[in-house]
Amino acid sequence: MQTNVDNYAFMEHKLVVYNTLTRKKEQFIPLHTPNVGMYVCGPTVYGDAHLGHARPAITFDLLFRYLKHLGYKVRYVRNITDVGHLENDADSGEDKIAKKARLEQLEPMEIVQYYLNRYHQNMEALNVLPPSIEPHASGHIIEQIDFVKRILDAGFAYESEGSVYFDVEKYNKQHNYGKLSGRNIEDMLETTRDLDGQTEKRRSVDFALWKKASPEHIMRWPSPWSDGFPGWHLECSAMGTKYLGDEFDIHGGGMDLIFPHHECEIAQSTAALGKETVKYWMHNNMITINGQKMGKSLGNFITLEQFFTGNHPLLEKAYSAMTIRFFVLQAQYRSTVDFSNEALQAAEKGLQRLMEAYTRLQKLQAGATTTVDIAGLRERCEQAMQDDLNSPIVIAHLFDVAKSINTIYDGKAYISAFDLTELKETFKLFIEDILGLQTETEAEGGNSDAYKGAVDLLLQIRQDAKANKDWATADKIRNELAALGFEIKDGKDRVEWGLK
Amino acid sequence: MQTNVDNYAFMEHKLVVYNTLTRKKEQFIPLHTPNVGMYVCGPTVYGDAHLGHARPAITFDLLFRYLKHLGYKVRYVRNITDVGHLENDADSGEDKIAKKARLEQLEPMEIVQYYLNRYHQNMEALNVLPPSIEPHASGHIIEQIDFVKRILDAGFAYESEGSVYFDVEKYNKQHNYGKLSGRNIEDMLETTRDLDGQTEKRRSVDFALWKKASPEHIMRWPSPWSDGFPGWHLECSAMGTKYLGDEFDIHGGGMDLIFPHHECEIAQSTAALGKETVKYWMHNNMITINGQKMGKSLGNFITLEQFFTGNHPLLEKAYSAMTIRFFVLQAQYRSTVDFSNEALQAAEKGLQRLMEAYTRLQKLQAGATTTVDIAGLRERCEQAMQDDLNSPIVIAHLFDVAKSINTIYDGKAYISAFDLTELKETFKLFIEDILGLQTETEAEGGNSDAYKGAVDLLLQIRQDAKANKDWATADKIRNELAALGFEIKDGKDRVEWGLK
Repeated sequence: MQTNVDNYAFMEHKLVVYNTLTRKKEQFIPLHTPNVGMYVCGPTVYGDAHLGHARPAITFDLLFRYLKHLGYKVRYVRNITDVGHLENDADSGEDKIAKKARLEQLEPMEIVQYYLNRYHQNMEALNVLPPSIEPHASGHIIEQIDFVKRILDAGFAYESEGSVYFDVEKYNKQHNYGKLSGRNIEDMLETTRDLDGQTEKRRSVDFALWKKASPEHIMRWPSPWSDGFPGWHLECSAMGTKYLGDEFDIHGGGMDLIFPHHECEIAQSTAALGKETVKYWMHNNMITINGQKMGKSLGNFITLEQFFTGNHPLLEKAYSAMTIRFFVLQAQYRSTVDFSNEALQAAEKGLQRLMEAYTRLQKLQAGATTTVDIAGLRERCEQAMQDDLNSPIVIAHLFDVAKSINTIYDGKAYISAFDLTELKETFKLFIEDILGLQTETEAEGGNSDAYKGAVDLLLQIRQDAKANKDWATADKIRNELAALGFEIKDGKDRVEWGLK
Repeated sequence: MQTNVDNYAFMEHKLVVYNTLTRKKEQFIPLHTPNVGMYVCGPTVYGDAHLGHARPAITFDLLFRYLKHLGYKVRYVRNITDVGHLENDADSGEDKIAKKARLEQLEPMEIVQYYLNRYHQNMEALNVLPPSIEPHASGHIIEQIDFVKRILDAGFAYESEGSVYFDVEKYNKQHNYGKLSGRNIEDMLETTRDLDGQTEKRRSVDFALWKKASPEHIMRWPSPWSDGFPGWHLECSAMGTKYLGDEFDIHGGGMDLIFPHHECEIAQSTAALGKETVKYWMHNNMITINGQKMGKSLGNFITLEQFFTGNHPLLEKAYSAMTIRFFVLQAQYRSTVDFSNEALQAAEKGLQRLMEAYTRLQKLQAGATTTVDIAGLRERCEQAMQDDLNSPIVIAHLFDVAKSINTIYDGKAYISAFDLTELKETFKLFIEDILGLQTETEAEGGNSDAYKGAVDLLLQIRQDAKANKDWATADKIRNELAALGFEIKDGKDRVEWGLK
């Protein structure tokens, strides 16, 4: 996809996004047009990515692609959490990565590298574009220590036994802790108690900025307070502002991160910098399974690898990466998506139908005039995208026109040369560039053209055989191709094929 | 490839490697069997990888694969240099990445991410296995500052105007600066002069451990001496010992890194830790082009991408990643390899011949007895590998047996079931697991089996047509397949095909 800042599409567009902070849809106006800064919370790399990880990746990939289409120069930062994320997402317990390393007798960074490589493979299969910068939390300890110092200097944190905690109550007197999540701090202060013996903290709502490492803790760095490690929320404040500046446009992530993670991030940045950092907070909704959030901590997840291979008791079959992508895009990102085999198989069929129409579109011959209603497709798709990335509506518009393509293909309607060119461009723009869908053979790459040609040739010979009443040869070709996994569809005056 | 530490192959092997430090071949005995620690200098990510980068990657991939085959548990660390590598590999000049960032108006880490992603794609195409840990220099500033402190404490460095330099002369009084490269420090001290006005340094042989950043320098971190950045040589000392311990087995890299980079690394580690860190120093020789080292700084390089596409004035055609890999493996790693189209085309043909025999091997039928001389192939290949990774000899042994395979395939000789099984295992072990060669269609992945089956079917129908004297159909199939890019070879009682 071309990023053409000369076309100034961004001066005309009316992109509207839902801002979690203001709880309403707002027009998207960047701080420094034509540049857009976008930060999205990436994975904690201590296990295989599951469907719940695919959704934010695909959602913000859609946004990244769309912003580039509008002509913006986007700096997209998606972090890798490789330290400081403790079990139960809390201030105590073992580091998730160190625990996995201990169990597998590996250096923590071997765990990180292993799962990071697999995450990248999954993202590539899903056709999720790599972000501009992918910073690691463990690679930004100095920046995080510096951030703690600034919060301490501003008076919103306190040191306790080598650790440093954020003073939520004090912060809330001047600012609003809870502004993002809508939680009420008074309620939290009343209902929470220090049950787990964490006497270092003044209040249980306080959260760690720096934790002193216990003697057996491997991942540790020197700091003014102790040999230790940063709190989980800190990395995003430190790395977001390092690479995007003290104020930037978009911060994204899953809804489950709104509290405490993003709430704490706002508090940290506001405390350290004296101002709000993020203009638009955007959150994708969850993938559910039997109505419950799919998550690693809940143990009810299906990994992407398992989807791709079908190797999980809940899966009736394997689902390709493009089916998963289409399944996710078939819902607007703020709706929940419930996993089921039926829904996935419907997505698979839908994707196949759409891509078939897209393939047929390439083969259409222009007629003298257009006899189907395909006007305004581009505008309707743009409108849907501009309404808070309404990808299901885009897909619905494409399906409408797919029907017309099939009618023209069957010789029952016509399309003019002008309309055909426009239609091809629009389909390419939305299917490939913005929705990021690929035909499965494209994804495989390689010499597929030669091989496809060989299959075409086989089918042509079958047609010749039929014409010569050589039924044996014709049947042999059909049966053997079927045995190899090909599906053959005999049309009125054409034969189509695909791989099952 | 399976890593089976229970087979204790490592207790019996006689692997011998050339140690640059002692200038002789030595038996390989790890410090902590069955664990092996290996550190290899990776790329500075400010441009596309070229053929000169492929050689160390493939060389140490071969070693990594072979050590795993011997049953060792290998922790393989290959770093990413994303800061501190100044132009001309010297202590002054602009940071290579920052310069590129300035020219392209990007954040330095965007440059790093972009070229790192492309490097990973290249490595995957070359079937180079990912290392266990891939640490970034910029992610280990604290560790590097700590290392400088230790060298200062030991008295082998001095601070000067916010920068810290290694005191080579003082170090050489107690240790041997030049032990790896064989350079004589007295000569260096006599012949070098401070011509470039670097008055901060006491001697021009001294090298920077920490550099104070000039005001316009973007990549900078706080330190006890100044806001600045680490010297280029420091990262490997700091990250190698962090992930592999104060003493570890193997340090690898290209021969061009022996001086100053690895010489300085030895000095740094010895100064900080009071002992030698690395047991075996291994260096691959260079790729030359018209007799000159191929290198980014010399501007005479051809990138891997250019090889894969053929898009370079010096290239007569495109060369696949597997051809490049085979070309590199056809020379022992300590020999020079001179680039030429002839040599690459010879490698391409050789690889094709070898892989064709490997494919035929799978189709052989066992006979009652063996009438060809294929005994001892496995042992001979092992011996060649154990003699300092002599991959060209392994390949020669495989070629010898490839001839026998072809003879059996043509029905002119026989192989017993026992020998056939052994031969299949040995070919798989050396071709796939150790040399890391893949057939091109394997590399493409996907539904290649179905497509190959379709081509087989076409050729079968062509044979039927011939048998029925239906020359028109037979010719049509042959001609159209040729037009699609297939090569058809009519054998005595079989037809073979491949993609051009």
